[in-house]
Amino acid sequence: MARTASLSGFPEWLPQERLVELHVLDSLRRTFELHGFSSIETRAVETVEQLLRKGEIDKEVYGLSRLQEDEGEGGKPDPHALALHFDLTVPFARYVVENAGYLAFPFRRYQIQKVWRGERPQEGRAREFTQADIDVVGDGELPFRYDVEIALVIAEALSALPIPDFRLRINNRKLAEGFYRGIGLTDTAGVLRSIDKLEKIGPEKVAELLKTELGATEEQAAAALQLAAIRTEDTSFVKQVRDLGVSDELLEEGLHELEQVIEAAVQHAPGKVIADLSIARGLDYYTGTVVETVLVGHEQLGSICSGGRYDALASKGNRKFPGVGLSIGVTRLVSRILSQELATASRSVPTAVLVALTNDESWPAAQDVAAQLRSRGIATEVAAKAEKFGKQIKFADRRGIPFVWFTDDDGKHQVKDIRSGEQVDADPGSWSPAEEDLHVRVITA
Amino acid sequence: MARTASLSGFPEWLPQERLVELHVLDSLRRTFELHGFSSIETRAVETVEQLLRKGEIDKEVYGLSRLQEDEGEGGKPDPHALALHFDLTVPFARYVVENAGYLAFPFRRYQIQKVWRGERPQEGRAREFTQADIDVVGDGELPFRYDVEIALVIAEALSALPIPDFRLRINNRKLAEGFYRGIGLTDTAGVLRSIDKLEKIGPEKVAELLKTELGATEEQAAAALQLAAIRTEDTSFVKQVRDLGVSDELLEEGLHELEQVIEAAVQHAPGKVIADLSIARGLDYYTGTVVETVLVGHEQLGSICSGGRYDALASKGNRKFPGVGLSIGVTRLVSRILSQELATASRSVPTAVLVALTNDESWPAAQDVAAQLRSRGIATEVAAKAEKFGKQIKFADRRGIPFVWFTDDDGKHQVKDIRSGEQVDADPGSWSPAEEDLHVRVITA
Repeated sequence: MARTASLSGFPEWLPQERLVELHVLDSLRRTFELHGFSSIETRAVETVEQLLRKGEIDKEVYGLSRLQEDEGEGGKPDPHALALHFDLTVPFARYVVENAGYLAFPFRRYQIQKVWRGERPQEGRAREFTQADIDVVGDGELPFRYDVEIALVIAEALSALPIPDFRLRINNRKLAEGFYRGIGLTDTAGVLRSIDKLEKIGPEKVAELLKTELGATEEQAAAALQLAAIRTEDTSFVKQVRDLGVSDELLEEGLHELEQVIEAAVQHAPGKVIADLSIARGLDYYTGTVVETVLVGHEQLGSICSGGRYDALASKGNRKFPGVGLSIGVTRLVSRILSQELATASRSVPTAVLVALTNDESWPAAQDVAAQLRSRGIATEVAAKAEKFGKQIKFADRRGIPFVWFTDDDGKHQVKDIRSGEQVDADPGSWSPAEEDLHVRVITA
Repeated sequence: MARTASLSGFPEWLPQERLVELHVLDSLRRTFELHGFSSIETRAVETVEQLLRKGEIDKEVYGLSRLQEDEGEGGKPDPHALALHFDLTVPFARYVVENAGYLAFPFRRYQIQKVWRGERPQEGRAREFTQADIDVVGDGELPFRYDVEIALVIAEALSALPIPDFRLRINNRKLAEGFYRGIGLTDTAGVLRSIDKLEKIGPEKVAELLKTELGATEEQAAAALQLAAIRTEDTSFVKQVRDLGVSDELLEEGLHELEQVIEAAVQHAPGKVIADLSIARGLDYYTGTVVETVLVGHEQLGSICSGGRYDALASKGNRKFPGVGLSIGVTRLVSRILSQELATASRSVPTAVLVALTNDESWPAAQDVAAQLRSRGIATEVAAKAEKFGKQIKFADRRGIPFVWFTDDDGKHQVKDIRSGEQVDADPGSWSPAEEDLHVRVITA
C-alpha cells in the first residue's frame, strides 16, 4: 500500500488495513481486561489551564475555537479555552480527581483513544494517533508491586500482537538520581536531561554537556556514563552498580525496586525485559520506575511503549494519588505492521457468504437464508440484483467473500467455495464454514 | 448517578457506566459485521473547505489552531484551516472519493466515532458524542434494494440493544416532492422545511407558514397537511395517498419505493417500521428515502437514528457515488439508558477472581495461578499486599469482584464466592466460574 495520507500526519486506513488495526485493538483490550483493568474514555478536549497544569507544555497543542463565534480579543490564550488532549495521562489525572468519590482504589484502568499533537509529521510521528494506556492509581499510597505487575501486563499484551520481538528497557529514577547525588552532582534533573541524549549524540558529547553545562568533573562525567552503560537481562546490574563504589540511600532504594521488577520479569516474562540504566525519559515527571520499549530490528522507530511511576499522578488538596502506567503507541505499531506487511487480514471484508439471487423475486427468501446463517454468527450479505451467476460470483470474488450460496427454484440449497470451485449441498439451518473462514483472521508474515 | 459533566456538553462515564456503553458498541459492531459492513475510521479533522462543501454549515463547528503558533491575520477563516468533523457523512464522502481506486463498490462500511458540535448543550444534545453510521455507496448507480436492506439492518441492530421498543419512521422525498408539485406547489424544498416544523408548532401554524411564506392556497395547504398526516404500519398508505387524487410521475416513483421498504419491513422486521409521511428532515440533502427513529415512550428525546438516500453522496468529476445510510446517536441512547437505569452492568469491573496472598513471598506463585485462570479467559487480579484475608475479601467486595482464590502453604487451592460465602476446593488448571459470572453482562431492567 503506497498511499500517503491526504492530510500530512493524519493517517487513515483502507478497510483491509483497518482489520489489522482492529485486531491489535481487540487483542490489547482482551489482555487488559483479563488483568482486571476497567475501560474508561475521557473527552477529547481539556481546558488550556488543565493542559498547562505542569507549568509547561513541551507538546504542540491544538486549541479549539467556534468558527461561528465572534473574533476573540487576541493576545494571550484564555485558560478556560479548550484544546485537544496530547496524551491520555493528563486527562486521566483530571478524571481521577473529579471522580475520586466514585472509584475503588487502587483503580486499574485502560484507555484507548486518539490524541493530537500539532508537530511536524515525520516517520513514526503523526498529528493524530491512537494510544493504549494502562495505569494503576492509588489513594494516598500505591504498593511498589504494581510497578512490577504493570511491566508484566504490558509484556503479555505486546506478546499477543502480530509484531516483531520487543524489549522493555527499564530503569529507575531513584537509582539514577541517588547515584548522581552520591558522586556529587546535585542537579540530578539536568544530568537526566543530558543522559537522555545519549542515543542521539553519543557518550563523548554527553560528557561534554555534563562538564560544560553542569560543571561536572571529568571523573563525575565518566561515572555517570559508566552507570548509563549498564545493561543486563537479569539482576546482575545490582552488582555492576555496587562495583562503581557509590553509596547513597536513594540509590539503594532504586536498586532494590529495579531488582524486584527484573526478578519478576525473568520468571514471568523471560527474555522480554532488560535493566537498561541509560533510560532517562528526559522531560517527563516520573519519580521511580521508567520504561521505554523497542521493537527488535526496528530500533529507529523509537519507543513503542513508555511510561513509569509518578508519586503524584494527581492531587486534590492534601490528598495524593500516586500512579504507575504505560502507554502503547498503537498507530506507530500499526503503521509499521502495515508498511512492512508484518501481518495481513485473511480477507478484506467481514463477509463469509454472499447469498446469490436466482431471480429478482427471490430476494425475500434470500434474506431468510442470510438470517439463518447470521444466527450462527456467519457474516452474510445478499446480492442486490439477480444478475447472471457468473457476475454474482465475480462480485463476491472482487470483495474477497469466500462462499456463494445458491437456492434453486425447488428450494434446493448449495454453497460454493469460490477459491476451490467446490460446490456442495447445504442446509441454511446447519451449514457452517471451516473455523478459519468464519471470521477474518490476521496472519503474521 | 447524579453526576454532571465537569465540562457542559462533554459527558464522561464512570467505569460501570462505560461497561454499558461498551456493550452497546460491541453489539452494534457485531450486527454490522454480520451483515458484511467493513469498519473504517476517518481522521477527526477536515479542512474548513471540505466542511463548507455543501455551501453552508448549519452545525456549529469547532475550528483548530496551534496554541504555539503565531497569531493569524484574523478576518475570514482560512479554507485550508482544520476543524473537527460534525458528522461522519462528510468525512466518509471525502474518504470514498480519495480511496475510490482501492474500494470495491457497492462499498458497505460502518463507522463508529466521536463527532463535535459547538452547540448550546441541552437534554439529548452534547458537544462531543459518538455516532454509529452504516452506509452503502455505489459507483455510478446503487440499486434501490439497498434502501430496503439498510432499514432492516438498523432494525436488527437496534433490536439487539438494551433499549425500549422503537419505531423507524420512514418517508420518501420523491413521494413528498412529487405530491407538492402535483398540487401546484413548486418550491418543494420550502414546503419540506415547513412540514419539518409540524411536531414543533402544529398543523395550524404550518398551514399559516405555507400560505404566508410560500403563497399556498387554503386547499394546497390543506392537501400538504393531509399527506403529512398519513401514517401506516403496512402498505395501506399507498391507497390513502392515491385517495387524495394527486397525480405526478415523481410521486408514483416515491410511492413505489416506499412501498418496497414497508413491504420488506412487515415481513422481516414486523412492528418496527412505519410509513410516516410527515418525516421531512428539513435541511439535509436527501433525495429519496428519509428515516427518523423514536424510542417508544421517549419521543421527546428526539430521533435516535436518522438518515436516508443521497443521489450523490460524493462525486469526482463526472463520476457520482450515490449512497444510502443511517446514523445511530450512540451517546444519546447511552445517556438515556444510564439516566433511566434501563440497563446496568452485572459487576463494575471485568475481574472475576482476586487471587489472595497468604504471605508476601507468595506473590510469584499467585501470579502463576492467575496466569492459569487467564489462559481459560477468566479475568484475574492478584492482591498486591498480604493483608489479613478479611481485608483482602473486603477489597474484592469493594471492587465488585465475585470470587477470591486462596492457596495455603501446602499448595492446597480453594475459591470463595464472596456473595454466597461458599468456599470450595479448586484446581487452577480446570476451575471456571459459572457462565454468567465469566464476563460482565449487561442486564436490562
